Amino acid sequence: MVDSEQKIRIALDAMGGDNAPRVEIEGAVEALKEKKHDLFIYLIGREELIKEELKKIGYNGGNYEIVNAEEVITMHDSPAKAVKTKLNSSLVVASKLVKEKKAHALVSAGNTGAVTMASILNIGRIKGVSRPTIAAPIPTEKGTLSRITDSGAFVDSKAEHLLEFATLTDVYMREVQKVENPTVGLINVGEEESKGLQLTYDAFRLLENSHLNFKGNIEGKDVFKGTVDIVVCDGFVGNIILKFAESVLPFLKTKLKKYSERSLAAKVQIGIAKSAVKKALSDTDPNYYGGIPLLGINGISIIGHGSSSPVGIKNMIYEAASAQEAGLVAKIFEAMEKLKK
Amino acid sequence: MVDSEQKIRIALDAMGGDNAPRVEIEGAVEALKEKKHDLFIYLIGREELIKEELKKIGYNGGNYEIVNAEEVITMHDSPAKAVKTKLNSSLVVASKLVKEKKAHALVSAGNTGAVTMASILNIGRIKGVSRPTIAAPIPTEKGTLSRITDSGAFVDSKAEHLLEFATLTDVYMREVQKVENPTVGLINVGEEESKGLQLTYDAFRLLENSHLNFKGNIEGKDVFKGTVDIVVCDGFVGNIILKFAESVLPFLKTKLKKYSERSLAAKVQIGIAKSAVKKALSDTDPNYYGGIPLLGINGISIIGHGSSSPVGIKNMIYEAASAQEAGLVAKIFEAMEKLKK
Repeated sequence: MVDSEQKIRIALDAMGGDNAPRVEIEGAVEALKEKKHDLFIYLIGREELIKEELKKIGYNGGNYEIVNAEEVITMHDSPAKAVKTKLNSSLVVASKLVKEKKAHALVSAGNTGAVTMASILNIGRIKGVSRPTIAAPIPTEKGTLSRITDSGAFVDSKAEHLLEFATLTDVYMREVQKVENPTVGLINVGEEESKGLQLTYDAFRLLENSHLNFKGNIEGKDVFKGTVDIVVCDGFVGNIILKFAESVLPFLKTKLKKYSERSLAAKVQIGIAKSAVKKALSDTDPNYYGGIPLLGINGISIIGHGSSSPVGIKNMIYEAASAQEAGLVAKIFEAMEKLKK
Repeated sequence: MVDSEQKIRIALDAMGGDNAPRVEIEGAVEALKEKKHDLFIYLIGREELIKEELKKIGYNGGNYEIVNAEEVITMHDSPAKAVKTKLNSSLVVASKLVKEKKAHALVSAGNTGAVTMASILNIGRIKGVSRPTIAAPIPTEKGTLSRITDSGAFVDSKAEHLLEFATLTDVYMREVQKVENPTVGLINVGEEESKGLQLTYDAFRLLENSHLNFKGNIEGKDVFKGTVDIVVCDGFVGNIILKFAESVLPFLKTKLKKYSERSLAAKVQIGIAKSAVKKALSDTDPNYYGGIPLLGINGISIIGHGSSSPVGIKNMIYEAASAQEAGLVAKIFEAMEKLKK
């Protein structure tokens, strides 16, 4: 491996997404060309395929190294099993580069469960963290991006895990997203303290007595409203909200398309409406914000959509670089020390 | 009370909604005038206010009776306490008319928790039902209305309750909505059987071995897609999905409005887009489908949105009438007998 001490070193799983390795390589090259961050990128996957893509693009700017990995973990693989058995997969090799401190960040648009597993098992958790969390962004009416924590890293969490998720995400929002004093809400079926499950009742108490800027219970309708910056819930609920939210744009598109088929006038109307709707909702496109951080890992871990475009991959790499520049891992370590006191 | 044996008798809580009793009375009069169903409506609430509204409209067509009830249960009242103490409230009086078989159906746009409580405590459950369920409609890409069961009547349900919710909603979909062999999906964090919580694991097994048309696990993204007719979940998750779904249209409106403020061209574009979007999404308006059935009650119980328009109230009354005409209570009784065998 080359000497790249000054640079932010990214371990890119080049075989993760649905259109790998093309979009991964295109996105990586874009990130290297733009020079927004001082990057060095490990392109990890099948060497001959990666070389082919690089040749197509005609990139000769350096600051990358191909790391050959013959195996691929697919969307259909069982996460735990795949990470334990496909030791020569691009994802496992990438995660080990972070473990060995050769890279600062793992970036993958692959199987979310497998990226989570590889991060936890191979890179490991920050001391004090019992459950890392996926803090997925959700666009809001306000134009901000709130975070849902946990968005599905763990189901069946306890109240103390929910406090941990909120704490991890609070550090991320402050340090990486530069949100001042981020607000925290607990998702529930009503605003009253007494509502909901034993889990939410207990978590309410823990959050209320924490150093977090806790605003109490929020409801499903508050997510898109952007009532709080950090939406706290168990990964079961968070995953359902996240996937439901991602279905809003396709739902809308289908509805508009069906309406346009009613008449010529409707068709013209929708033709005009479509581009406006697309632009008005541009921040709901996952490619816009790029990756989703897995927080609590002893290194940066960024998970992306399988359907990421090259821009999406580039933004995932930027997300990783911003987290590294902000010293996220060290800041989380400090917060966990404080939490345990 | 007048003799009205042939008619479908509705006990309308005239004080329930945000704009009560105006919208309630207007909606009731519309339903009586349209004669889509052969109705007799008890208008329950403050007599002088109801009379005033009737006078404003100038309705003299009969088929109604005002039942005076001085108290009102508000959105801020604690459901259980209000139903037990505000005995002369419009909601409690209405539910007792159903209990006494003077009315077939309770219709209220009031406090959802209180309507649920009044239905369970005053009207009672159908024999064999341990937990009634709110089966809220969700519009889908296909143009159908799926149902989320349970949408929040109960949180922290067990697997056997989920089977019960699905069974109740299956009867409703067949008998009232005339959906042939409705499909059932269990909401989870992945399609694989092994995914999720102990609850979903157990419920999967029960649903798989039932007479229901069970299609396995579904995810958050499948709700708007309309992958199944009946989406089964605990009321905690269902309530969050429902409220989130209801926030989609306001979210969209705000996003389009903000975009229109960018330039004159954008303003014109959005002006055209708005009416198209509104028409294309007309079936996402709660007033379109009217009420939400509370299933498993020994009488028809229809809950509506606090913000219901007169059309919304009329559609709630129609929903109640259709359920009564379909003999819903008897059909559920039969299904529960079958389930317990």
